[in-house]
Amino acid sequence: MSTRVEMASEKEASRGLEWQVTVPGGSSVKLETDSVPTVAGWRMRRLASALVSKVLDFASKVRKIAADDPRKVVHCLKVGLALALVSVFYYTRPLYDGVGGAAMWAVMTVVVVFEFTVGGSLYKGLNRATATLSAGSVAFGIHWLAIKSGRTADHIILGASVFLLSSAATFSKFIPAVKARFDYGVTIFILTFNLVAVSSYRVEKLLALAQWRFCTITIGFCICLTVCVVIRPVWAGEELHRLVMRNMEKLADSLEESVAEYLEEEEEGGVDCNQKLGQKSQGYRCVLNSKSSEDSLANLARWEPSHGCFSFKHPWRRYLEVGAAMRQCAYCIESLDSCINSENQPPDSVKKHLAKVYAKVATESSKVLKELASSFRSMRKPSSIDYLVEDMKNTADELQNALGSLPQEATSLIIETLPLITAASLLIEVSARVEGVVHAVKEITALPCFKPADGEELKARSTVA
Amino acid sequence: MSTRVEMASEKEASRGLEWQVTVPGGSSVKLETDSVPTVAGWRMRRLASALVSKVLDFASKVRKIAADDPRKVVHCLKVGLALALVSVFYYTRPLYDGVGGAAMWAVMTVVVVFEFTVGGSLYKGLNRATATLSAGSVAFGIHWLAIKSGRTADHIILGASVFLLSSAATFSKFIPAVKARFDYGVTIFILTFNLVAVSSYRVEKLLALAQWRFCTITIGFCICLTVCVVIRPVWAGEELHRLVMRNMEKLADSLEESVAEYLEEEEEGGVDCNQKLGQKSQGYRCVLNSKSSEDSLANLARWEPSHGCFSFKHPWRRYLEVGAAMRQCAYCIESLDSCINSENQPPDSVKKHLAKVYAKVATESSKVLKELASSFRSMRKPSSIDYLVEDMKNTADELQNALGSLPQEATSLIIETLPLITAASLLIEVSARVEGVVHAVKEITALPCFKPADGEELKARSTVA
Repeated sequence: MSTRVEMASEKEASRGLEWQVTVPGGSSVKLETDSVPTVAGWRMRRLASALVSKVLDFASKVRKIAADDPRKVVHCLKVGLALALVSVFYYTRPLYDGVGGAAMWAVMTVVVVFEFTVGGSLYKGLNRATATLSAGSVAFGIHWLAIKSGRTADHIILGASVFLLSSAATFSKFIPAVKARFDYGVTIFILTFNLVAVSSYRVEKLLALAQWRFCTITIGFCICLTVCVVIRPVWAGEELHRLVMRNMEKLADSLEESVAEYLEEEEEGGVDCNQKLGQKSQGYRCVLNSKSSEDSLANLARWEPSHGCFSFKHPWRRYLEVGAAMRQCAYCIESLDSCINSENQPPDSVKKHLAKVYAKVATESSKVLKELASSFRSMRKPSSIDYLVEDMKNTADELQNALGSLPQEATSLIIETLPLITAASLLIEVSARVEGVVHAVKEITALPCFKPADGEELKARSTVA
Repeated sequence: MSTRVEMASEKEASRGLEWQVTVPGGSSVKLETDSVPTVAGWRMRRLASALVSKVLDFASKVRKIAADDPRKVVHCLKVGLALALVSVFYYTRPLYDGVGGAAMWAVMTVVVVFEFTVGGSLYKGLNRATATLSAGSVAFGIHWLAIKSGRTADHIILGASVFLLSSAATFSKFIPAVKARFDYGVTIFILTFNLVAVSSYRVEKLLALAQWRFCTITIGFCICLTVCVVIRPVWAGEELHRLVMRNMEKLADSLEESVAEYLEEEEEGGVDCNQKLGQKSQGYRCVLNSKSSEDSLANLARWEPSHGCFSFKHPWRRYLEVGAAMRQCAYCIESLDSCINSENQPPDSVKKHLAKVYAKVATESSKVLKELASSFRSMRKPSSIDYLVEDMKNTADELQNALGSLPQEATSLIIETLPLITAASLLIEVSARVEGVVHAVKEITALPCFKPADGEELKARSTVA
């Protein structure tokens, strides 16, 4: 077989390259010469298999997205349903005659307004309705003014008003307060104003048309909102509440696990253990990156009516403060994490001197965060938080004292002990920042929507009895 | 005067309360009894003055936004201009007859597509055009199928296709890659598909209508894009480039200043000095919060054609890597900042032992970042970066050695020196992370769009000569 390469006839060469691999031992291996008659054919096959694997890849990605959050699938079906409902307006003659050609605005409203959260849909729907009404009124006023002022002046009035109002409205979007609440409304204002102001120049029955349009937008909005609220609603406020709660748990986990990883890695002596812990200890990264989600959820939540335990006036802004306090912790944990993964390792005696109290501080801080999270989960005031904070403070003091009484050997080997000292110092800082989180959370749990803690409830009952 | 209150006649009482304040000394002061005849009037005045102050407040806010970035004002005028240009299509008869009632789509396109950056307008415009075309074709196909299959089946086919395609398209928005590039396109796809599929049931001349619509959308898009690109364009790519550059400078400043603040506060002994430095040393906070801006700019930048020094295929993704590396630095600086503001202050002797080399590391790290920023500013390869990095590493080693040789007094007073040791350790970590930034930036400055450094250019020239 080793002579096959030289023997390759011209005919074979003309059919394309023959795929042979010369194995070091002197023999060569023939690769599928029969089943792949040409290079083109082989390439086609490779392309097809690449395509299939890409499609399968994509399918598995889609499956993962759906499995991770089945509500996304429900949302898609809800959108489909709302649009199918709207098309009833086209199929049914009487209704079609009623709302006329303007019925397309109903479709448009559903497509544009239907959002994942109820708050999102309400924000867009209310913005759209208000903006359409106000822009329509203003445009009518200007149109009336233009008609009153004669043939040439009306061109100028309409043109100038289009230019000025559009510019001013666009500028208003740069004002943060407007941007957060009325961004979509301003766009619709500009759109409606332009459509009405300009088309009024041509269309006579403008008022009737405007009525139709507003009516269909309202129908679209109602269908959209009904489907959104009735079938498994997703509330932006609840999402925010849960996001903050999950972030607390992640912080608590990563604090506990990263320390455990450091102090116990030699004892359990496992790469396995590290890998297992790895994911959990990286939880703080989610906290670092969740600012924009928190902001947008808080913006949408304030449009939502009372739902579950949350009233209309629930102070969603406070959740942003909790989020900010948690990010403060996360920054510190990030630095802590790099100390833990440092190459310099302290001598065992030093490690032993600090290990216990070090782990204690991490555990106590993590307990505080978990207590806060469980208070958010059960919607009860945190019963034992003051004791836990006290414990955390005490262990932090203990750690500081342990650092102060480091054995002589440690202080003389400062290069080796530096990462440990830094980590300990950062951990003390983390525990101080956890207090900031407690402070921010307490302002939320003090609200009447949080039931008294189990113990206090019992106490209150026994007093009544 | 002290008897005035008792003497107040009934007539005066009926005119309202008389504003008198009894001063402890026994005399009372009469407050504007003549100019404020009633409580209601006084309240009106207060309301009016509050309103005026609110309006003034708002005006000063607006002025500040405009002064901070005059391009925002230009953008607003551009939007106004584009809309005024579009309305020409309505005012001019021949054009009006040409594009018919579908001309409203031109207005809609301009309003919805015109964005602050060229990339944003291109992203929305191209998405809109592509989605309209593809959704139109699909809807026609399904419409044709529905007609072929008879009177009752077409209801089912149309209804089912609306439901299924809308659901599937909505789901595709949850796929991150689709979300980043085609979010708007998918919305328009759903919208157009529904409008065409459903309205085709009624309208006979659908094809002509579709042609019109596509034509007007194109006109709107062209007007929009022309105004956007010709008059003072804002390129998303350039914005990203500048944002990253400014963030480097901010990091460099805050590194330098926060250390200076710490080490020199006693010498310059000034609250003034601290306040002056305060703003600059907080620059790293901007870096912490700029992830979402960077992401969205990078998403828009890839739609932009070649402009200035940047080609169409400029690797904008790499800027996100630089951004991530800079945030890594910023996390560390955040922790460093809290060490610096700690209450525990080390004894002067320790401070003196470390001060110089400590400041040197900060200065060298800051120099590296500034060199990178200036390379971004001048679009030249950083000439001396390797030397600067070498210097930074050496000073970091020096600091580590200085920590190793702390005087005995320091190590026995570990509680007091803890913040300083931690800060030094974090500073060493910061310098290591700055290397990460250098690595990420080098991948960008290696591109041909970066001219050779001054020195190298001269050398190359002299070689040629």
